[in-house]
Amino acid sequence: MSKTLDLLAWRYAAKKMDPSRAVPEDAVARIVEAVRQTASSSGLQPYELLVVTNKDLRDQIRAVAWNQAQVVDASHLLVFAAWDNYTADRINAAFDLVNDERGFRNEGWEAYRQQLLANYTARDAETNYQHAARQAYIGLGTALLAAAEEQVDSTPMEGFDPDSVDKILGLREKGLRSVILLPLGYRAAEGDWLVNLKKVRRPLAQFATTVA
Amino acid sequence: MSKTLDLLAWRYAAKKMDPSRAVPEDAVARIVEAVRQTASSSGLQPYELLVVTNKDLRDQIRAVAWNQAQVVDASHLLVFAAWDNYTADRINAAFDLVNDERGFRNEGWEAYRQQLLANYTARDAETNYQHAARQAYIGLGTALLAAAEEQVDSTPMEGFDPDSVDKILGLREKGLRSVILLPLGYRAAEGDWLVNLKKVRRPLAQFATTVA
Repeated sequence: MSKTLDLLAWRYAAKKMDPSRAVPEDAVARIVEAVRQTASSSGLQPYELLVVTNKDLRDQIRAVAWNQAQVVDASHLLVFAAWDNYTADRINAAFDLVNDERGFRNEGWEAYRQQLLANYTARDAETNYQHAARQAYIGLGTALLAAAEEQVDSTPMEGFDPDSVDKILGLREKGLRSVILLPLGYRAAEGDWLVNLKKVRRPLAQFATTVA
Repeated sequence: MSKTLDLLAWRYAAKKMDPSRAVPEDAVARIVEAVRQTASSSGLQPYELLVVTNKDLRDQIRAVAWNQAQVVDASHLLVFAAWDNYTADRINAAFDLVNDERGFRNEGWEAYRQQLLANYTARDAETNYQHAARQAYIGLGTALLAAAEEQVDSTPMEGFDPDSVDKILGLREKGLRSVILLPLGYRAAEGDWLVNLKKVRRPLAQFATTVA
């Protein structure tokens, strides 16, 4: 058994969270930091995290998220918001940052910059957004483990109207589109229909195949 | 500092792997198990993992993956392959499995089954595939951490021709489409241009915003 498997066994998508308990800010910060540190395609990190604690905004989001109570019963709502497009400005900013931090320019790296600029700017915004959104899911997989390590419950949600959430948070003006909601809080086990049910996964033989 | 942050600091996308060292099978099994145990939309796990050790097949995959040597220098190549569509059969199999494992049928759960059947089968295959592919990235985020815990290097790759990989592995006949390659092996630091370069991430203030 590994620690990672222990964390995965502990976590589940809490259906009821305790509104009287708030996740400490330092724990939230470590979860956000884990997302910031994980991998993304070409290292571009084409998404941002909004950490929403504002109650009024979370009430509004709940109303467009199938009325899921965790949105407000949790103390923090993470919103994964992907770039609406890969633009030359965004790609150049990422490559410039790498050069600044490493203190030098590298020919191979600059050739790679030109390749990405050519590839991404030739694609339509929707295709690029879809690609950016996928990267946010790497962050989500990371956040689930980082939260579990803090003994913080998290419930990934795709069940919301993204256009409405974009409006509520003013995301489109920032060139962002909401992809996933992730409330962070503490399970209220006594009110949760799921907490005592067996977690079911496809049998290994159906999920993974060795090709030797 | 958390263990998760330590693992993320340790990992990087190894550019050169040591072909003389093989990852032990029990470590590979724990990495695969972590992917199997993580979350997915409605718990449907709409992707499979292929664990490719066959050298000839990996040579063929390398040829359609920008000639990236890690594909063959690693001992194991994980291929994340998403469902090409959500079908009624697949959705029903997942719900039936849950009922079998939990030993009862639940009215709310059965209503949810009908809702998913209606929603997914009304959408075109490409839209459904794109949604399934996103879930595979949750698995990828999980695998990166599970591998790091084993001190196993892993290099996520989107740079390959998916249609060719699908042909090489016979994925389309299984209703699958390749999404991500993840070689598992050990870094050969002396031949890796990236290993000693600073890992650069967007500053926290640009990546995460608190909305209080």
